[in-house]
Amino acid sequence: MIFFDHISTTPMDPRVMAAMLPYFGNYYGNPSSHIHAMGIQADEGVQKARGQVAALINCSPEEILFTSGGTEANNLALKGLAAAYGGRGKHLVISEIEHFSVLNPAFTLQKQGWEVTRVPVNPCGRVEPDEVEKVLRKDTSLVAVMLANSEIGTIQPIAEIAKLTKDHNALFFVDGVAGAGNIPVDVRSLGVDALSLSAHNFYGPKGVGVLFLRKELALDPLLEGGFQERGYRSGTENVPGIVGMGKAAELAMEEMPQRGEYLRGLQKRLWEGLERGIEHLHFTGHPRDRLPGHVSFWVEFAEGESLLLFLTQHDVMAASGSACSSNLKGRDEGDLVISHVLKAVGVPTDICQGSITFSLGKENTSEEVDFVLDILPKIVERLWAMSPMYADYLKKRK
Amino acid sequence: MIFFDHISTTPMDPRVMAAMLPYFGNYYGNPSSHIHAMGIQADEGVQKARGQVAALINCSPEEILFTSGGTEANNLALKGLAAAYGGRGKHLVISEIEHFSVLNPAFTLQKQGWEVTRVPVNPCGRVEPDEVEKVLRKDTSLVAVMLANSEIGTIQPIAEIAKLTKDHNALFFVDGVAGAGNIPVDVRSLGVDALSLSAHNFYGPKGVGVLFLRKELALDPLLEGGFQERGYRSGTENVPGIVGMGKAAELAMEEMPQRGEYLRGLQKRLWEGLERGIEHLHFTGHPRDRLPGHVSFWVEFAEGESLLLFLTQHDVMAASGSACSSNLKGRDEGDLVISHVLKAVGVPTDICQGSITFSLGKENTSEEVDFVLDILPKIVERLWAMSPMYADYLKKRK
Repeated sequence: MIFFDHISTTPMDPRVMAAMLPYFGNYYGNPSSHIHAMGIQADEGVQKARGQVAALINCSPEEILFTSGGTEANNLALKGLAAAYGGRGKHLVISEIEHFSVLNPAFTLQKQGWEVTRVPVNPCGRVEPDEVEKVLRKDTSLVAVMLANSEIGTIQPIAEIAKLTKDHNALFFVDGVAGAGNIPVDVRSLGVDALSLSAHNFYGPKGVGVLFLRKELALDPLLEGGFQERGYRSGTENVPGIVGMGKAAELAMEEMPQRGEYLRGLQKRLWEGLERGIEHLHFTGHPRDRLPGHVSFWVEFAEGESLLLFLTQHDVMAASGSACSSNLKGRDEGDLVISHVLKAVGVPTDICQGSITFSLGKENTSEEVDFVLDILPKIVERLWAMSPMYADYLKKRK
Repeated sequence: MIFFDHISTTPMDPRVMAAMLPYFGNYYGNPSSHIHAMGIQADEGVQKARGQVAALINCSPEEILFTSGGTEANNLALKGLAAAYGGRGKHLVISEIEHFSVLNPAFTLQKQGWEVTRVPVNPCGRVEPDEVEKVLRKDTSLVAVMLANSEIGTIQPIAEIAKLTKDHNALFFVDGVAGAGNIPVDVRSLGVDALSLSAHNFYGPKGVGVLFLRKELALDPLLEGGFQERGYRSGTENVPGIVGMGKAAELAMEEMPQRGEYLRGLQKRLWEGLERGIEHLHFTGHPRDRLPGHVSFWVEFAEGESLLLFLTQHDVMAASGSACSSNLKGRDEGDLVISHVLKAVGVPTDICQGSITFSLGKENTSEEVDFVLDILPKIVERLWAMSPMYADYLKKRK
């Protein structure tokens, strides 16, 4: 089994599991049960994790709000900040390549009377700060740009955009799900107001995420109840999950330099091998400012989904676009093949039939990369042999 | 350690942990990754769990929406159904003793223009169907009454209330968190439209819950994104948590008769022992229609919190009111001592200084009950000896 789909989820680190286990077993209390030892122990686990995540992104523990994952954190930021600060103006700015958990809340805000401006990206998938500046207005109260894109890997110039939003007195939220825990994130030096993280994107458990919210700010909660997380997010804490996220954050912080260097090595090997080995292949995203271990591309005359299916026959697992988009209903076939991200970077919709995202993780090896580099050209050849468009192309070339 | 606080949370059953472990280890895929084996295995785990929870409450698997817990399920039901069906009328009916995760969303709806009627309860904490019928109107689109109250244990006449709401063409949502998995729940024979469950209340993991939604109905999602759970609840599924909830549901279904009988035995022993052993003790809630293993009361001239603190010195853990209410800010001291539930059942606020909830679980023993029955009268005596009010009372009695 070769798992090259770490952007959809990562295998949990055994050290994370080890940290969680006591909280499934002995320390099973409800952190709100302040009156007895079982509750206090559970609360201590949560507070330790809060500190670990805060250290990872350089903020105060009280600026960490635990949620059930990246999607909840993104919804809470968008809807919660919009509700709290909409009085300043109902103009929201997002990029064209945001994840569905930002795009769809933005649609909902639009239905509620907000005006939403979608900033385009350049052909490398980069949100140009100039383009953001152009659309900022006096009534822009909120700007949301992602840290990194899961499909094409591009990392955004967050610090530069943050400066602009500050000058324009707009709040700046960053969907950090695809990047945080994998690349350095310092919310202070970046100058962002809110940022989301998802534990299962950096070897932590599924079902837990974080919204960093600068302590001078407030927001309207989505989940109301027993006043957990200072009232911003009620509900009995997922203690083992939170403890696991804390441990994953601690490990990410300690090992980020080595992990990054290792993954950039594999990434280079894979990138160069694909470049050499497969004709008509087009990389997507930024050639340098991209997630470590992330290589994305499309191949002329070869459908992305078919490539993936043939890869699975060799036990190689990768993604076509975002895992999340595979659930979308009510879209026509063309929409499914070409995602909003590929459209935004100007992939030619007439000849591109879907892309591939290889996202490597810390347990992958150069042997695995070599294996994929060995089989993929053969798969491509096989697909080309079945493609009437490729036959056409060959005829024309002659 | 004697844990008599199962209403705040339950220790996870080792068989639940065993079911979850493979999904932390080998089957770590994202269920939305339909293209490869790792994603498919994860999805199969989720679908199996969906069937197990559906079996527990007698509905179809497609009527099960996984959430991050009871609070999210309650918020989703209230706000989601209100948004979807508010066109029928903006009158919401709830009981006076609902949990904060129903009360607070109801307050929010009120701010959004809904009229909210809070139905009183009788001195046993029972919502009388007659009282509900009295307040139902043509514009009542939604009614919410809990299955059982965590603080005083009373089980509500859900089926009778469901008949009334149906006659009045209002939707009926039941917060089942404190009861489901511990007492039989059949959503078909009860005739409810939506019902929430929380896994950690019946020996499953924290951080996962369910909203049952009758398949003819729809609601507006709170968390929007990648269209998981048919678009009603987006976000990468907490696969191990969901698998654990499925297993906990399966075990609850199989073992409910034995667990119930065993807990009713311990409950009787504890109840009768308290009745015999402590003067000036007043039970709260319904004497018969109550959660198995649940015994709640208050003692004149003895502060509830002090009783609990002295109990913890003997390693006995119990609760004063709901665990959740311990997070509430901005309330005065009196509010903290007497909860909205105790007020609603007419506990005399001048002499009651807080209540105790003992909630027993399947691992508790009659020896533990006897130990508590041995120490509690001594603790009460000690508190009385320190109480000026008790001294006053003795003086007057002479």
